[in-house]
Amino acid sequence: MALIVQKYGGTSVGSIDRIKAVAAKVKSWSERGHQLVVVVSAMSGETDRLIALAKSIQPRPSPRELDVLLATGEQVTIALFSMALEDAGCQARSYTGSQVHILTDSAHNKARIRDIDAARVRADLEVGRVVVIAGFQGVDEQGNITTLGRGGSDTSAVAMAAALKADECQIYTDVDGVYTTDPRVEPRARRLDRITFEEMLEMASLGSKVLQIRSVEFAGKYKVPLRVLSSFEEGEGTLISLEEEIVEQAKISGIAFNRDEAKLTILGVPDQPGVAHKILGPISDANIEVDMIIQNIAADEKTTDFTFTVNRNDYPRAMEMLRSTAETLSAKQVLGDNRIVKISLVGVGMRSHAGIASTMFGALAKEGINIRMISTSEIKISVVVDEKYLELGVRALHEAFGLAGETAA
Amino acid sequence: MALIVQKYGGTSVGSIDRIKAVAAKVKSWSERGHQLVVVVSAMSGETDRLIALAKSIQPRPSPRELDVLLATGEQVTIALFSMALEDAGCQARSYTGSQVHILTDSAHNKARIRDIDAARVRADLEVGRVVVIAGFQGVDEQGNITTLGRGGSDTSAVAMAAALKADECQIYTDVDGVYTTDPRVEPRARRLDRITFEEMLEMASLGSKVLQIRSVEFAGKYKVPLRVLSSFEEGEGTLISLEEEIVEQAKISGIAFNRDEAKLTILGVPDQPGVAHKILGPISDANIEVDMIIQNIAADEKTTDFTFTVNRNDYPRAMEMLRSTAETLSAKQVLGDNRIVKISLVGVGMRSHAGIASTMFGALAKEGINIRMISTSEIKISVVVDEKYLELGVRALHEAFGLAGETAA
Repeated sequence: MALIVQKYGGTSVGSIDRIKAVAAKVKSWSERGHQLVVVVSAMSGETDRLIALAKSIQPRPSPRELDVLLATGEQVTIALFSMALEDAGCQARSYTGSQVHILTDSAHNKARIRDIDAARVRADLEVGRVVVIAGFQGVDEQGNITTLGRGGSDTSAVAMAAALKADECQIYTDVDGVYTTDPRVEPRARRLDRITFEEMLEMASLGSKVLQIRSVEFAGKYKVPLRVLSSFEEGEGTLISLEEEIVEQAKISGIAFNRDEAKLTILGVPDQPGVAHKILGPISDANIEVDMIIQNIAADEKTTDFTFTVNRNDYPRAMEMLRSTAETLSAKQVLGDNRIVKISLVGVGMRSHAGIASTMFGALAKEGINIRMISTSEIKISVVVDEKYLELGVRALHEAFGLAGETAA
Repeated sequence: MALIVQKYGGTSVGSIDRIKAVAAKVKSWSERGHQLVVVVSAMSGETDRLIALAKSIQPRPSPRELDVLLATGEQVTIALFSMALEDAGCQARSYTGSQVHILTDSAHNKARIRDIDAARVRADLEVGRVVVIAGFQGVDEQGNITTLGRGGSDTSAVAMAAALKADECQIYTDVDGVYTTDPRVEPRARRLDRITFEEMLEMASLGSKVLQIRSVEFAGKYKVPLRVLSSFEEGEGTLISLEEEIVEQAKISGIAFNRDEAKLTILGVPDQPGVAHKILGPISDANIEVDMIIQNIAADEKTTDFTFTVNRNDYPRAMEMLRSTAETLSAKQVLGDNRIVKISLVGVGMRSHAGIASTMFGALAKEGINIRMISTSEIKISVVVDEKYLELGVRALHEAFGLAGETAA
């Protein structure tokens, strides 16, 4: 018998029929003797409907009141889901975030979980109830309703699993696991049986939007085994766990990519302490997130060249700021390109294998793909290439690292 | 400067435009220097929509989970309403029933308020905020969400006014006050400026559905001055208050009536102790509410005749039961009539005026209306007459007691 936390997203509970189908699934887990805690999102479309209502009243809705409004979405689902379980003959009880004291900070619309009082949930589990919990929401120390931001239900599930010391946290979604790369780009992409938290973090932050990144961090921190699997099909999904538990270690686990990149370069900046801050300060003050940052000494050795990437949506604003900074700093020139993409190899195995980078660069060169930027971390190598090479580059790397083929054991 | 609790029902907050209009109204009260607590219902239609969702999952939804579901209706309104106030430049803060500890018993779907912790509301009022509270809902001692049943928002408002020792509790509705009788029956019906709690209770329970009866009881018990007025038109409405505050006392305040009556009579029952219980026991066991009860000695002095009235919907079931009881008791006969109505005179003034009953009976006799039953209380005389005489009877009494004309001072 195991204690399992399951999370079902908005699509999985998007209609009365789906709620009933998922309830039947949960019931069958319960009948196999497991203790079940189910975390649910708002029915698909509901959060958007509520946001539209708010905006029809206030163009920038009060963050506190927006949370009061949005929290109703999950509250509707927990009630309906519990009814569906009870109708199927399975004892159930629902709780809002506030009722199980999912304590968060007071950052409305993007709160972070601080603590969970799991005693009430445990008491219900002991008497054989399935516990249904509203994801995405919590309560601050003053009793105000908070929400965790989009995708926050994943984090709610992981936090609940950590608080209950659950055996596994299962995230049900519309894909059946984590793949070596996006199957829409490389049809031979393979589902991974296992992946480490670190790899998953790199995959998630690089655009494999299977899980909310914060939930993976949380799971890693509290060592909660996390499984991604399909709401609609049977299957084992992908287990995300600690490195030591993964016996046979592949060098590379997967290839992530990000289409939304744009790069900006400022050339011939005087090479003085504080210059990086002068360049990036205004950008970050404007809440523009910077991804890669590269600095090179220029040919004359007295000035430096500085390149960074931002989200494509922020490109025009960032470009404008950089031009103004260039004037202040008497820089030579400002360049920009918003038709680039980033492709990254991810794998804990690369720590101990020096040849990975050269294999990567060789595979891209063979296809005539020019590398515009390179950035590396312990378990990741990223390259920036022209947009048009995305598919070709991903497939070449997938082939070069032997990722295709049957699902590995 | 006064502390005022205002309650707006579902129709008053039924659309974004109406929410904005009501917020503007609240703002103008606030600007006149008053402290405002606003209790709101779910937007009209929302509660029915939620109930339909629940029933599509579970024909008889779990009462606990139904409350979790229904409570979202008011929660949506408080958030939108607070946004509308803030958008209009009026500081506001919303609270669910649970957040302001509207403590109730655990009778889901029909809970009763036990206590309110008004400290949090007071703190907001002190710093100049308008406080917006979800009506209809509360929380029990275990932290479960409860609802008060249909119309419960009136009770929430009165309870909040009592807890805050508010100067007045204003119930905004789609009528502009309490009338001497239903203006659809007697176009010359007149709005009352004042009425006592006791009179209002009799008027409400007799079918003048302006206010939820429990809220009037509550207001009377805690001596909260209650005012009924229109959401849509300007006007003073009707103030419901204690008898001593009403200076110039009319004998009769109004004429209430009820179309949903049916009467049942059992003739020739042996006149023994316990016979009333034998007749009414099965009826009340079947959860059929009995309104008037009349017992007369029969002509032979050894048996008795027994008549009572029930809601017209319960008539067939009650008739069946009475026939079976009649057999057991060897009664002579069972009679029934479901085409009757009840007309009642209400007024605290009648306590000291003996002539009221004879004036009433005289006025009805003059129109050829036969009285089928009579029942009296301290501040009420009710008669049962044939359905067809309802309008004629109401108008005759309205005339006989001089209720028509200009609004009294």
